[in-house]
Amino acid sequence: MKNNYLLFTPGPLTTSLQTKRSMLSDWGSWDSDFNAITSDIRKRLIKIVNGDDKYTCIPLQGSGSFGVEAMLINYVKKKEKILILINGAYGERIKKICDYHKIKNLPFIWSEDKPLDLLKLKNTLKKDKSIKNLAFVHCETSTGILNPLQEVSKLCKIFKINLLIDAMSSFGALDINSKKISYKALVASSNKCLEGVPGMCFVISKKTEIKKCNGNSDNLCMDLYDQWVYMEKTGRWRYTPPTHVVVAFLEALKQFSNEGSVRGRYARYKDNVQNLINGMNKIGINSLLPKKIQSPIIATFLSPSDKKFKFEKFYQYLKGYGYIIYPGKMAKQESFRIGCIGHIGKKEINNLVSQIEKFLKKEKISTDRYAS
Amino acid sequence: MKNNYLLFTPGPLTTSLQTKRSMLSDWGSWDSDFNAITSDIRKRLIKIVNGDDKYTCIPLQGSGSFGVEAMLINYVKKKEKILILINGAYGERIKKICDYHKIKNLPFIWSEDKPLDLLKLKNTLKKDKSIKNLAFVHCETSTGILNPLQEVSKLCKIFKINLLIDAMSSFGALDINSKKISYKALVASSNKCLEGVPGMCFVISKKTEIKKCNGNSDNLCMDLYDQWVYMEKTGRWRYTPPTHVVVAFLEALKQFSNEGSVRGRYARYKDNVQNLINGMNKIGINSLLPKKIQSPIIATFLSPSDKKFKFEKFYQYLKGYGYIIYPGKMAKQESFRIGCIGHIGKKEINNLVSQIEKFLKKEKISTDRYAS
Repeated sequence: MKNNYLLFTPGPLTTSLQTKRSMLSDWGSWDSDFNAITSDIRKRLIKIVNGDDKYTCIPLQGSGSFGVEAMLINYVKKKEKILILINGAYGERIKKICDYHKIKNLPFIWSEDKPLDLLKLKNTLKKDKSIKNLAFVHCETSTGILNPLQEVSKLCKIFKINLLIDAMSSFGALDINSKKISYKALVASSNKCLEGVPGMCFVISKKTEIKKCNGNSDNLCMDLYDQWVYMEKTGRWRYTPPTHVVVAFLEALKQFSNEGSVRGRYARYKDNVQNLINGMNKIGINSLLPKKIQSPIIATFLSPSDKKFKFEKFYQYLKGYGYIIYPGKMAKQESFRIGCIGHIGKKEINNLVSQIEKFLKKEKISTDRYAS
Repeated sequence: MKNNYLLFTPGPLTTSLQTKRSMLSDWGSWDSDFNAITSDIRKRLIKIVNGDDKYTCIPLQGSGSFGVEAMLINYVKKKEKILILINGAYGERIKKICDYHKIKNLPFIWSEDKPLDLLKLKNTLKKDKSIKNLAFVHCETSTGILNPLQEVSKLCKIFKINLLIDAMSSFGALDINSKKISYKALVASSNKCLEGVPGMCFVISKKTEIKKCNGNSDNLCMDLYDQWVYMEKTGRWRYTPPTHVVVAFLEALKQFSNEGSVRGRYARYKDNVQNLINGMNKIGINSLLPKKIQSPIIATFLSPSDKKFKFEKFYQYLKGYGYIIYPGKMAKQESFRIGCIGHIGKKEINNLVSQIEKFLKKEKISTDRYAS
């Protein structure tokens, strides 16, 4: 089974052929060669957030959401209230997880296309002294909005609140510096900005923090403390790792390093999103977010108001030319999304935009060329 | 990163090049092409257990243990006591999962190299009317012992007990016929006898049974009811699927079908285990289990009593020739294991045995050629 699609989606995304080709061998999951791969990955991930010997990385089987759930049930005690910042689907998912596990929580909700009101957050933290933890989605791929990590981290420090970061779609492209940001734990996955294939995720924290998690998890497979203790002792994963996914992840991390790590990857993605938004703007399609809060991960575009525009037709047309885009996830407005991450650059972005232009012409869809 | 190892391990195992090559494309996880792959896999899996329209299959991200945990927390109510048949590490893991989730449970433990005492089991079920569920490991890879599914299923039917089957390492090679065996749910994974790569698992049950699971799960990602409802409605996985693993699984299932499905695969594995045990016997190494309870999945061999035999040296020697074997998992005796499943046949088994013979000669290890 083969295809030649380029994915303009925020994970799964387009991976390099080199990454995919690394999956052409089988690996014994208990063998020292494979243990060395796991160990190498863990070290590289810690380095990305400028973590030192005090930090550790705990990989886990499953998608990013498995990691988010594992992080919450290990690092948060059920009775210690968590404030959940929500401006999109991933914040809402954190709320859902907390409800499943009866973790005492308080949602802090605001509009998905607006920046976080830091003053309001400060006042909330000031008033409610029972808040012990705060869950924060760094980049909310529902819209592509970038939430202010630095500022939220500062507030958490002031109010002595544990910060838990969902860095799923920011890790590797946006700067997260453990020397500058203090956090209890953060979670991300193999198949976002690190450009691996999907199937595993990981949590990073100080060793002192994971040590405190003993006995917290109400789920065996998601017991990160147990996974960590076993891995430290044996070098192995507790239960069967997705061996091919893991090997591809190391291959992807090597390419990440060759590209100049976070700095290099950020530069390419930043170019991607700017080229994309400028190009779309030229053909009369506007992006949702102001530049200041637009992440270089994914952009939401408002569908043309012309009733001749049908998303399904648009999607199938682009697919016919080898481009897979993403539907919108906004409640209020008709929209669609285009991912800027993965093994894609200027050429691929420009080709996509010119194909979109051809679609608009073919379907005689009018757009407002003078807008925004 | 490449290797040329053949894995004589019970998953991860050796997969065909064709299966691995199917991972050379990227797939949009929301795209209809990918949805069709998921749908095809689900149908094929149901067919393997001779399930009809009344049955459904729910795939899940993660290793097999994630599936076991998900099955237990969805299909078993915490207060409805479960009897856990334990003659090895996987039975023990089920007990551990039940304890994590405070599922009322009673272990039924016996020796890992002995057949189940059916009369004793019958008496236990007769005496304790509060037992509502029974967890059963079909093939316990700790030793390679085959537990009696048919007979246990019969007892469950008589005593109106819900049977939950861990069919992880039997599914696809040993006959499980939904027309003949009644069960509440069964779980298996992509990377055992179906010869896919690791990273996903699946649960099969009647639709009427999954419908009863609404609200049971105490974990969001492992909520099989939720996963099922969403998948039925949209064709998609709820959270990012391991796309490459899924595509490889369909490729592996096509090869499974071409080999003659369960019948064909059983025949090859049965040959593998017989060739292996006979060959090992000829060079003086005895297998642990009597033929009657030896599964065609993996065999445990007793290490030669000669003190010159060191497992680590043995392992590294074989690895040097491209063979990865498995350490033993028995408490009582020094042993090692050799898997008979995966994309291997007569030639590979014979080559392995002759390499083992060379090792024994090289190290001047004496074995008892006349034993057993």
